[in-house]
Amino acid sequence: MLLLDIGNTNIKVFEKGEIKRFDLKSFSFPKEKFYYICVNEDFKEKIEKLPNSVNLEGKFSLKTKYRGLGVDRAVACYGVFDGVVVDAGSAITVDLMIDHEHQGGFIMPGLSSYKESFANISSKLICNLDEEITLDRLPLKTTEALTYGVIKPIVCVIKEWAKDKKIYLTGGDAKALFKFFENCVYDEKLVFKGMQKVIKEIEC
Amino acid sequence: MLLLDIGNTNIKVFEKGEIKRFDLKSFSFPKEKFYYICVNEDFKEKIEKLPNSVNLEGKFSLKTKYRGLGVDRAVACYGVFDGVVVDAGSAITVDLMIDHEHQGGFIMPGLSSYKESFANISSKLICNLDEEITLDRLPLKTTEALTYGVIKPIVCVIKEWAKDKKIYLTGGDAKALFKFFENCVYDEKLVFKGMQKVIKEIEC
Repeated sequence: MLLLDIGNTNIKVFEKGEIKRFDLKSFSFPKEKFYYICVNEDFKEKIEKLPNSVNLEGKFSLKTKYRGLGVDRAVACYGVFDGVVVDAGSAITVDLMIDHEHQGGFIMPGLSSYKESFANISSKLICNLDEEITLDRLPLKTTEALTYGVIKPIVCVIKEWAKDKKIYLTGGDAKALFKFFENCVYDEKLVFKGMQKVIKEIEC
Repeated sequence: MLLLDIGNTNIKVFEKGEIKRFDLKSFSFPKEKFYYICVNEDFKEKIEKLPNSVNLEGKFSLKTKYRGLGVDRAVACYGVFDGVVVDAGSAITVDLMIDHEHQGGFIMPGLSSYKESFANISSKLICNLDEEITLDRLPLKTTEALTYGVIKPIVCVIKEWAKDKKIYLTGGDAKALFKFFENCVYDEKLVFKGMQKVIKEIEC
């Protein structure tokens, strides 16, 4: 079974338990049957027309009062009964699930956006994030101050909502955030697990 | 007495208790004596050469272990004995003062940077921040989710460091953040008050 998660900048392909990433611009869509979700407006119409494609959007219903929830967020949450779902990609989305019901969520810029923002503000703020950063004391130099100013607010707000609930981290920057949480699982297949659950339901 | 705070995009002029903002590109420097601080590398040399200018950088010493603290942050802190100093401009700087000693601090992108970041990530994330946002419940639609994702992490991390200390808010976006803190003063003259303190000391 072939699953595609089509984002704004790249495509993730899931097959035989493995995820492969491709650049959206140079990607050739497969000839065999595939299931997909797509948040990229420019690609939606094109893919919908392919006779071997099955769009999972609209094929499942996440219990929520949220209006306009992206299908990628919805499907990642769909596989989670209880906990905080964090997808750290080009944007970082945070969604709270309680008893298989979505309680709401929010969106922050992705980690790489912060770096760009700093560079646009001042040449003095051009830096790479410091991977060794510690969050339990205040920074005492600029590279620390910038990394802390990116990571700490994100960690702080996620922890405030998570409390003692489990945090499910997925997406390209999940690994960079993982070490700052205690009750946390890193699951790069979270979206695909949600998709598999939907497929199982619609094909039963 | 004429005071100038020269930033990356504009100049703030303080005279007779009033602050005026000017675009850096079209600003004509005054002919009379003025005191200034400058974080803009492109302008430093030019202003230093003016015979009527007095650079306050290097004329005061903030007690701190921080290396490379910007003079604007240092001077804002210089006038504060105890509390958290937040300067919400093109970047948002947060610094902790205890017993007139600087304990460290960090830097986040300014509010307008977040809006730009979202727009760069996806056309679906283009939005104006929702001024009516409430932070005590999870968002249930995209405009709320984006505003919350900007404001809440900033508020969260500042509160964590402030605890029961007073928060001193200054800078162009201070007003947008003010309502989210309890023990908070909004003081648009904070940097100039620090400058006045330095001038008083060096001219005594």
